[in-house]
Amino acid sequence: EIAEAAEALLAAGGALAGKHVLVTSGPTHEPIDPVRYIANRSSGKQGHAIAAAAARAGARVTLVSGPVNLPDPAGVEVRRVETAREMLAAVEAALPADAAVFAAAVADWRVAAEAGQKLKKDGNAIPPLALTENPDILAGIARRVAGRPRLVIGFAAETQNVIAHAQAKLARKGCDWILANDVSQDGGDQSGIPGGVMGADRNAVHLVSAAGVEDWPTASKAEVARRLVDRIAEALDRQETLGRQENP
Amino acid sequence: EIAEAAEALLAAGGALAGKHVLVTSGPTHEPIDPVRYIANRSSGKQGHAIAAAAARAGARVTLVSGPVNLPDPAGVEVRRVETAREMLAAVEAALPADAAVFAAAVADWRVAAEAGQKLKKDGNAIPPLALTENPDILAGIARRVAGRPRLVIGFAAETQNVIAHAQAKLARKGCDWILANDVSQDGGDQSGIPGGVMGADRNAVHLVSAAGVEDWPTASKAEVARRLVDRIAEALDRQETLGRQENP
Repeated sequence: EIAEAAEALLAAGGALAGKHVLVTSGPTHEPIDPVRYIANRSSGKQGHAIAAAAARAGARVTLVSGPVNLPDPAGVEVRRVETAREMLAAVEAALPADAAVFAAAVADWRVAAEAGQKLKKDGNAIPPLALTENPDILAGIARRVAGRPRLVIGFAAETQNVIAHAQAKLARKGCDWILANDVSQDGGDQSGIPGGVMGADRNAVHLVSAAGVEDWPTASKAEVARRLVDRIAEALDRQETLGRQENP
Repeated sequence: EIAEAAEALLAAGGALAGKHVLVTSGPTHEPIDPVRYIANRSSGKQGHAIAAAAARAGARVTLVSGPVNLPDPAGVEVRRVETAREMLAAVEAALPADAAVFAAAVADWRVAAEAGQKLKKDGNAIPPLALTENPDILAGIARRVAGRPRLVIGFAAETQNVIAHAQAKLARKGCDWILANDVSQDGGDQSGIPGGVMGADRNAVHLVSAAGVEDWPTASKAEVARRLVDRIAEALDRQETLGRQENP
């Protein structure tokens, strides 16, 4: 309790004191029928670490999380969702925010018509799985005219051409930064699951912005989170300084 | 340690001493591409509870488990798999067994052509998700001529016509018993996920066999596991007694 109280005191004077930071984390699950779903591989570790780091830096933090097996970070308001549409609604309900970090691995597609009853094998016929596009949460928030967070940060998990894909995504989504992960590397995950970095504790990250590309050293997800939170605090401060100079 | 030693002593004289029991548990995950998969809702709690109960009854237990967030049951040999095909291979490798309990929620279908690279949204085009049938592990083992476990038990998670579906499944698969669950009921799961019983701790179960249908009282998954293990021990004993009478 003493440690918590000390941390709360430090946070009150932290680099993000007085700011509201919105973070999404984890996968989404898109129902096929009552017992089946389409999912993305995402442990939620990176998003949860960012939420925790922002809270330690004094921010008020709202964490919108898909289904994960992680404890709630201390000092963070957690909203649990399952699908992309639920995640979008929770994100919109959490605005306004000074910065928004979209670390969740949102499913691009959902099943067009979710079955109310369990689908049955019917001889040799395989049911067609018609898909429809999910709302694009990152682009939707980044392209808002009213109520856009001052800093909108997306993530890109890529298996090839990581930087090129991230730069294209930055332009396409209209966000300020993309944190790009190379998920083809094994980050030390012991799961034996392909794309092991999704659940791994270490992360090779590139920060892609209009200003260029920074290659960050391979680091733990907690270290990546601290570095990102430092950058967010600097960027918000710089914006406020510029704003004061423009409106003296 | 004293408790463990006492349990081991009791198990050595248990109702399943000298028997090998094979149990499958959890969901399977069927990859769409390196970051996406199709999954079944299954916590693995019931299968893991059965494996634990069989071990406490003195059996040598092999537990073939899909991806779950559960500790390994004490005294059980655990083989971890991801897909239905991996589960089948692990089951076949674990034979011979005296009894096999197929509690896993195996995906009926997998994606016909798993993509080696992450699928991309390409304008408005939605990629067609062609599915193909997975191997039927329960029927495959139940219909073996050589090396069939003496007792083959399947599970049926149903949302409607629970008994009729279970009886049809019993005949179709060629297994000895079906434990049928009504997953349309809320079993007390707090997940907020539809079909909440899949992760719930209590279970409404019907034991369906050629002899008829038994409705078991709603009970915890641990109690269902103990009851099933008692039945397995009785059935194996009865078979051995009949065998001795036929071959005096």
